[in-house]
Amino acid sequence: MLNPKTIFRILGLILITEGFFMWLAIPMAFIFREGDAWQFLLSGAITGTVGMLAYLPVRNTTIELNRRDGYVIVTGAWILFSMFGTLPFLLTGSIPGFSDAFFETISGFTTTGASILNNIEELSHAVLFWRSLIQWLGGMGIILLTLLLLPFLGIGGMQLFSAEVPSPTPDKLHPHVKDTAKRLWFIYLVFTIAETLLLWAGEMKLFDAFCHSLTTMATGGYSTKQASIAHWNSPYIHYVITLFMFLAGTNFTLSYLAMHGKFRKIWKNEEFKWYLGFIGGFTLVIATGLFFTSGGGLEAAFRNSIFQVVSILTTTGYATADYLGWTPWLIVLIFILMFFGGSAGSTGGGPKIMRIVIMIKNSTQELKRMIHPNAVIPVRLNRMAVEESVVTNVLAFITFYGIIGVISMAIMSVLGTDFNTAVGAVAATLGNIGPGIGKVGPALNYSEIHVAGKWFLSFLMLVGRLELFTVLVLFSPLFWRR
Amino acid sequence: MLNPKTIFRILGLILITEGFFMWLAIPMAFIFREGDAWQFLLSGAITGTVGMLAYLPVRNTTIELNRRDGYVIVTGAWILFSMFGTLPFLLTGSIPGFSDAFFETISGFTTTGASILNNIEELSHAVLFWRSLIQWLGGMGIILLTLLLLPFLGIGGMQLFSAEVPSPTPDKLHPHVKDTAKRLWFIYLVFTIAETLLLWAGEMKLFDAFCHSLTTMATGGYSTKQASIAHWNSPYIHYVITLFMFLAGTNFTLSYLAMHGKFRKIWKNEEFKWYLGFIGGFTLVIATGLFFTSGGGLEAAFRNSIFQVVSILTTTGYATADYLGWTPWLIVLIFILMFFGGSAGSTGGGPKIMRIVIMIKNSTQELKRMIHPNAVIPVRLNRMAVEESVVTNVLAFITFYGIIGVISMAIMSVLGTDFNTAVGAVAATLGNIGPGIGKVGPALNYSEIHVAGKWFLSFLMLVGRLELFTVLVLFSPLFWRR
Repeated sequence: MLNPKTIFRILGLILITEGFFMWLAIPMAFIFREGDAWQFLLSGAITGTVGMLAYLPVRNTTIELNRRDGYVIVTGAWILFSMFGTLPFLLTGSIPGFSDAFFETISGFTTTGASILNNIEELSHAVLFWRSLIQWLGGMGIILLTLLLLPFLGIGGMQLFSAEVPSPTPDKLHPHVKDTAKRLWFIYLVFTIAETLLLWAGEMKLFDAFCHSLTTMATGGYSTKQASIAHWNSPYIHYVITLFMFLAGTNFTLSYLAMHGKFRKIWKNEEFKWYLGFIGGFTLVIATGLFFTSGGGLEAAFRNSIFQVVSILTTTGYATADYLGWTPWLIVLIFILMFFGGSAGSTGGGPKIMRIVIMIKNSTQELKRMIHPNAVIPVRLNRMAVEESVVTNVLAFITFYGIIGVISMAIMSVLGTDFNTAVGAVAATLGNIGPGIGKVGPALNYSEIHVAGKWFLSFLMLVGRLELFTVLVLFSPLFWRR
Repeated sequence: MLNPKTIFRILGLILITEGFFMWLAIPMAFIFREGDAWQFLLSGAITGTVGMLAYLPVRNTTIELNRRDGYVIVTGAWILFSMFGTLPFLLTGSIPGFSDAFFETISGFTTTGASILNNIEELSHAVLFWRSLIQWLGGMGIILLTLLLLPFLGIGGMQLFSAEVPSPTPDKLHPHVKDTAKRLWFIYLVFTIAETLLLWAGEMKLFDAFCHSLTTMATGGYSTKQASIAHWNSPYIHYVITLFMFLAGTNFTLSYLAMHGKFRKIWKNEEFKWYLGFIGGFTLVIATGLFFTSGGGLEAAFRNSIFQVVSILTTTGYATADYLGWTPWLIVLIFILMFFGGSAGSTGGGPKIMRIVIMIKNSTQELKRMIHPNAVIPVRLNRMAVEESVVTNVLAFITFYGIIGVISMAIMSVLGTDFNTAVGAVAATLGNIGPGIGKVGPALNYSEIHVAGKWFLSFLMLVGRLELFTVLVLFSPLFWRR
C-alpha cells in the first residue's frame, strides 16, 4: 500500500525547496530595478507555506518507500512543481492564462523548452531568470531520478545504467547513491559556472550568459531571446554552447571520470562512442548538405550543422538556424534526430542513446540468430552480455514510445493540428526537445496550439521526461488495487 | 553451405510455372481481338526456356534444403519472377523502360499495388490480365511461404502462427504442410471465383470482375481502371469488394474452419477478434468524421470509411475515395492504419495484426511487471503464454520495421521527394499497401518518383513482403561465411 505520510513529507520538502528557489529571483528584480520583487516574494511564500503544511505534520515519520510510493512521488513532484511554478508567471502577468502558464512551466521543469511566449524580450529579468531556473532544477531532478529511482524500478533497461555508476562501496546502494548524486550535482554546477564565464567572455551579457548556462546544462533550451541563440551572430557563442550541450547530453558519470583523469574508462563506454558516432555522422552529412544548398561557406555550414545536430539529438532545442527552411532531405534528417535523445545518466530526454544502441544491436543479432538458430547470441554492451529480459525491457520501451507517439499524433490532429505539426509537436514534446516541425518549428512556437492540445502536450512532456512507465503505471487499475 | 542444385531446381521450376501462366494471357488477346498474343507467347517461351535450362540439368537431384537455401530461394524467387514478369510489359510496349516495368512487376508480385501507370485504360486486356495475375500468383506464393518457411525459420514470431494451423498429424510437419497448402489454395481459388461472380452480377464486366478478384484476394490492389474502384459508383460493388478484402486479410485457416462449420474455434482466435476490433473501431471513428465533414449522408460516410479502412489495413490499396482530400485528422488515422497489416496466414502485408497485438499486450504487461517486479507476467495469446524469446522476436521485428522505415525515409528524401511523400511512399511500399500519402496518394501514382527512388522502393516492397529478415539476412557477412 501507499505510505501517504512519506509521500507528504517528500512532496512537502520539494515545495519548500521550490519556494526557496523562487526567492532567488528577487535579487534580479532589485539589480535590474524592475518592480516585480513582491510577486516572487509572494509566490515563494505561498509555495513554501503549502509545502510546510504538507511537511510539518509528518516531519518525524520515518521514510518508508515502496515502488508504488516511488511512482506517485516522482509524478507528483513534477506536477506539483509545475503547478506552483506558474505563480510568478501569473502574478507578474507575464503569462495571463493558467493553461499557458502551466504549459510553459512544465515545459521548463521537464527540460523540454517548448514555449508559448511571443514576447520573451519584454519579460522582466526576474521572470526570465525564473524561467531558466526551472529548467536547471528540472535537470537536477532528472539526475537524482536516474540515480535513485530508475535503476531500482528497472524501467526500460535502466538497470544497465546503474551498473555503470562508479561506486566505492558496490554493496550498499543507499550511501553510495547519495554520494554519487552529490558528486554529479557538483559537476552540473561546475559546468554551469564554466559555461556562464565562457559565454560572458564572449558577446553575451552576464545575465544572458547565466540564464543560457542554466538551460544548456538541463538540455532545456529556453532562451532569453525570441530568436534563441540565433540572436547572437557569433561563432564563438555557438561553439561554446555546442560544447556544453554535448556535455549535458553525456552521461555525467563520464564527466566525473574525466575530471579524475580516467580517460580509458570513458573510451570503454560504448554508449559514449555511439553518441560521438551519431553526432559525427549526422553533422558531417548535414554540413555537406548545407554547404552545397545554402550560401555561407564551409565554416558556417559546419557550425550550423553541428549546433542543430547536438541541440536536437541531446533534446536541448536551441536554434541558430531555422532548419525548416533547409532543403527537404535535411529536414528529414533533423526529424530523425528527434528520436535519439541524450545518453543515459545525462539530463537529455528522448529514448536515449543506450536504448537505440541496444535496439540496433538486437536487430543485427536477430539476423545472426536466423542463420544459427541454436546458437546463443546475446546482445553485448561494454563487452558484457545483456540479459534477454533487459533487452525485452528496452524493446518494450521503444515500442511503447512508438505506440504513445502514434496515438498522440491522432489526438493532436483531432484537436485541429495539421499532419506535419501533429507529428512535429508530438515528437518534440514526448522527446523533451522543444521545437518540432510544421507550425511548431524553431522560428515559431506553441502559442497557436488549441488549449486542449496544450494540456495534452503538457502531459506528453511529463510522460516522456519520466521514462513513460513511471507516469503511465498510475493509469493501470492494478496499481490502485488492494 | 548452400545447395546450388536444389536452388536451381526450385527456381527453375518457378520460372517454368511463370512461363506457363504468361501463356494464360494469350486467350485474352484472342477474345478481345487485340494483336498482342505473340508477345505473351514469346515472353512465356523465354521465361520457360530459361527455367528449363536451370531445371533440367539438376532435375534428378534430391531436394536438400537448409535454412540458407531457404533464404536464397525465397528472395531469389521473388526477384527472378519479377524480372521475367516484365517481359510482357516490355514486349508489348505497355511500359517502355525496364526500371518502370520492374517496379510495376515487383509491386504486383509482392501484392503491393503501387503503380507507375498513367494510362491504365489504354492497356490491352491481355496486359491488364497479366498485371492482375502476377498479384494473384504473389498471393499464392505468400500463402505457401507462410506455411512452409516462415514458421521453420522462426521469423519475427511466426512460430506462433504454425501452432494455429489445424493439423491432422501434428507431429509430422511435411505432409501436413503440403495438405494445408493445397487446402488453403483451394479456398483462395474458391473466394476468387465467388468474388468474380458477385462482381459480375453487379455493374462490372466479367473481365473487370475477374481481374479485380485476382487482385483483391492477393490484397494487391491493382485495378483495371485509372480511378481504381471509384470508377464504379456502385455501393454494391464497394461492399462486395470490402467483404473480400476483409476475407483476404483474414487468416485463411479460419476460412477453412468456417467452411467446416467450426465457428467456435474462430471465435477463440484472438488475432481475429483484434482484427475485427481494429476495423470496427477505425470504421466507426472515420465514418463519424466523414459524416460531419463531408456531404453525402450516413450510408456514403459509412461505406467510404469501411472501404478505405479495410483496404489500407489489409494492405490492399484500392480506393473509392481520395482520402488525402479528407479533413486532416482523418488523413492521420488513415496513415496510422498503414502500420497494422493483415492477419498472419492471410495474403496481407505490413507488420501483421498478430505482432501489433503482442506488442500492445507486452506494453501493458510491462506496466504490470513494474508494479509486481517479482511476479512472472507472460504475454498471453489465445489463452496460452507466449515464450519470452518469441515476444523478443516480435518486438525485434517491429523495431527493425521502424529502423528500416526511418532510414528509407531519409534515403527517399535524399533522392528528392518531399517529407510527406517520403513518409507516405515508404509506409506504403514497405507495408505492401500501394497508395500512400503526399504525392503518392490514391489519386496519384509513383510515376513521378526519381528512377533511383523507384529501384529503392522496389527493394522495400520485397523486404516488406518477405518479412524483412528473409531478405536482409542475405546482406549479413555471416551468411556467406565458411
